[in-house]
Amino acid sequence: MEFQVVHKFSSGRARCGRIATLHGVFETPVFMPVGTQGSVKALSPDDLKEVGVKILLSNTYHLFLRPGHDIIRNLGGLHRFMGWDGPILTDSGGYQIYSLAKLRTLSEEGASFQSHLDGSRHFVGPRDAMAIQQALGADIIMAFDECAPFPADYKYVHNSVRLTSRWAAECIQVKQGNTQALFGIVQGGTYPDLREKSAGDLVAMDFDGYALGGLSVGEDRETRARVVRETVPLLPEDKPVYLMGVGKPEDILDAVASGVDMFDCVLPTRNARNGSLFTSKGPLAIKNACYADDDSPLDEQCGCYTCSRFSRAYLRHLFMAKELLAYRLNTIHNLHYFMGFMKEIREAIAKERFEEYRNDYYRHLADVEEERRGENLRRS
Amino acid sequence: MEFQVVHKFSSGRARCGRIATLHGVFETPVFMPVGTQGSVKALSPDDLKEVGVKILLSNTYHLFLRPGHDIIRNLGGLHRFMGWDGPILTDSGGYQIYSLAKLRTLSEEGASFQSHLDGSRHFVGPRDAMAIQQALGADIIMAFDECAPFPADYKYVHNSVRLTSRWAAECIQVKQGNTQALFGIVQGGTYPDLREKSAGDLVAMDFDGYALGGLSVGEDRETRARVVRETVPLLPEDKPVYLMGVGKPEDILDAVASGVDMFDCVLPTRNARNGSLFTSKGPLAIKNACYADDDSPLDEQCGCYTCSRFSRAYLRHLFMAKELLAYRLNTIHNLHYFMGFMKEIREAIAKERFEEYRNDYYRHLADVEEERRGENLRRS
Repeated sequence: MEFQVVHKFSSGRARCGRIATLHGVFETPVFMPVGTQGSVKALSPDDLKEVGVKILLSNTYHLFLRPGHDIIRNLGGLHRFMGWDGPILTDSGGYQIYSLAKLRTLSEEGASFQSHLDGSRHFVGPRDAMAIQQALGADIIMAFDECAPFPADYKYVHNSVRLTSRWAAECIQVKQGNTQALFGIVQGGTYPDLREKSAGDLVAMDFDGYALGGLSVGEDRETRARVVRETVPLLPEDKPVYLMGVGKPEDILDAVASGVDMFDCVLPTRNARNGSLFTSKGPLAIKNACYADDDSPLDEQCGCYTCSRFSRAYLRHLFMAKELLAYRLNTIHNLHYFMGFMKEIREAIAKERFEEYRNDYYRHLADVEEERRGENLRRS
Repeated sequence: MEFQVVHKFSSGRARCGRIATLHGVFETPVFMPVGTQGSVKALSPDDLKEVGVKILLSNTYHLFLRPGHDIIRNLGGLHRFMGWDGPILTDSGGYQIYSLAKLRTLSEEGASFQSHLDGSRHFVGPRDAMAIQQALGADIIMAFDECAPFPADYKYVHNSVRLTSRWAAECIQVKQGNTQALFGIVQGGTYPDLREKSAGDLVAMDFDGYALGGLSVGEDRETRARVVRETVPLLPEDKPVYLMGVGKPEDILDAVASGVDMFDCVLPTRNARNGSLFTSKGPLAIKNACYADDDSPLDEQCGCYTCSRFSRAYLRHLFMAKELLAYRLNTIHNLHYFMGFMKEIREAIAKERFEEYRNDYYRHLADVEEERRGENLRRS
C-alpha cells in the first residue's frame, strides 16, 4: 500500500490524499460503506461501483463465524467470493467481540466468547485475528485490539491500552512478508494520557496506518472531536489516519478538520433500510404520510439511480409495503449522498475552501434543526 | 391491443403469436412475472428488462388497498408509478378477494370483504373492478369474476359461473370507449358443462381475450390439463388465451399444447426467495450444506447476471445469512430460467419441434425425480 498526501489545507490539519492498493487507488478523505457479512446490505458490487464506492469494509468477526475464513480462502479470498474487485479493509474483530459476542472473557492471550449466532465457543487472539484476515485477503487489515466500553474507569482503559499494545506487537511480528497493509488501533477512551500512551506504543512499532478506535460508543460529539483533535497530532504525518465507526456528517467534518483520512459507518446503509434518507434539504423520513402522493424525487439535486427514476410516492409505497426493492433503492440513494459529500470535502480542501464548506454545512444542519423544531411547535 | 397468430403447430393446438399493446409488443406463449404490489419482489424495472421480461402482472386487490388506485391515477398511472414502460396486465381482484380477504360475503352486485392488511371493510363489484383497473391504466385488464374454491359442489360452481357471466356483461358495458384490452374469465371448476356454459356466455360478449380462471387451486395436474384441453377449443382462435396462476413448467407445457398463449405465476419469484432455484439439471436448494464451498455457478448453462458473477458458495452464504442481495440474485436467476424456457417453447413451435421438445422436457423432469429418489434411498 502506498499513501501520498496530495494537498494539505493551509490552516489546520485537513488534507487530501491518495492510497494505492493492489486492488486499485482511492482518494482520501474517504468513506467506506460496511459490508458486514461480505455484502453491503441490499446492493450488488455493480450497485456499489455505480454509486461511486471505491473501498468497502467487511467484518472479520462475522465472516469468521459464517461462512468461515477457511471457506473464503479456499474460494480465492474475499474479493473473489463477493465479486468485488476494488480495495477492501477488514476490521480486527475486536469491536464485534466486545459488542455482539456473548460471555466474553479476556486473558493476556486474547478473547474467549460465544457466537451470537449459535452460542458456539471460540477463542481469538492477535495471531488468530491475523490468520483470519490473511485468509480473507483484504488490502488493509487491522491489528487485534481491546475496545473498552463507554464509560469505563481509568483502570479498565489503562489495561485495555496495555493489552492492545501487547497484541499489536504480536500482529506486527506475524505480518512479516505479508503484502497486506496493517493498521494499528489507538485506544485509550477519553483519557488524554492513555491515548498518548497508546499512540506512542503503536507509532514505535511502525504500522502502515493508524486507526482511532473506541469512539462513537456513547460519548458526546464534543468529547469525540476533542479526542480526535488531540490524538491525530501524535501520529506520523506520512501515514493514513482512520476513525473507526464514525459516520455522522458533522462528526466527519470535525474529524477531517483534525486530519483524519478514512471513515466507516453503518449509518447511511442502516438508515436507508429504516427509511431515513439524507437529502440536500436535511433528513427525510419516507414513511411520512405527506409523501403518499408526492411525485417529486427524494432530492431534486440528486442524480442517483433512485432519484432519477422513482418518486417519493413510489418509494413510500415500497417502504410501507415492505417491498425488498425499497431497501436497495434507499441504500443506493444514501450511499450516493455520502460519496458526494466526501467528494465535496476533498474538493473544498483542494480549493482551499474547506473551512467555508464546513461552516456552511454546520449552518445547514442548524437550519434544518430549527425548521424541524418550528414544525413541531406548529403541530403542538 | 392487436393479436396475431404467427405460427400454428401442425399437430395439436400449440401456437406462436404476437401481441401489440400501447406499451410495446411481446411474443406468445409468454410468461408474466407477478408484481403484486407494483413491484416484482426484489427486482427493479431494469432488472426485469435485463432478464428478458416483456409483460408483467400486478394485483388490483393489493393496489386498491395500498396505496389506493386514486393515488396511482393522480401520479400518472401504474406504468409511471413503478417506472415500468412495458406492457402490464392487472387481474380483476376476484381471486385475491377469495383467497386473501377476510369475512367475504357475496351478493348479486359483488363482494363485500375485510382488508387482510387492516380489517377495513370494502365492497367491490364489476363496475368498481373496472374503475380501479382504469385508474391503474394497465394495457390488459380483466373482467370481475367469482373464483370458486376447490373442491366445490356443482351448485356452488353453477352459481359462480352465473355471477361471473352477469358481472362480465357489466364490465363489457363499462368498457365502451376505453383503449385498454378487456379479457373475460372462464370459470366452471372441473365441471365440463359449466366450463362450456361459462365459455359460451363470455364468447357471446366478444372480449379482447379469454382467461381460464379457477385452476391451480388444489386440483391435480391431470384434471387441470383436462379442463384446459376441453375449454380452449370453445374459445375463438383469433383471440389470446390466458391460463391464470399456472406456472409449473410441466403445466405450462401441457397448456401450450392445448393452445394457451399467456401465463402468470408467483412460482419463480417466490421459490427464488425461498432458495429454491430452477436449473438445467433440475431444482437446486441453495441452503444445502454441499454448496458451502462450491465454486461453480448455480447453473453452468445459464448466462444470467447471477450465474456469470457469483458462485453457489456465495449464494448459499447470502441465503443462510438472510442477506437482502440473496433475494435479488435468486430472483434474477429464476426469472431468467423462465424467460429462456418460454423462448425455447416458442422456437420449438416455430421449428415444428414442439412435441419433441415437450417430451424431452418431461423425460428430463422424470430423470431428475428418479435421481432424487435414488439419492434419498442411498441416504436412508
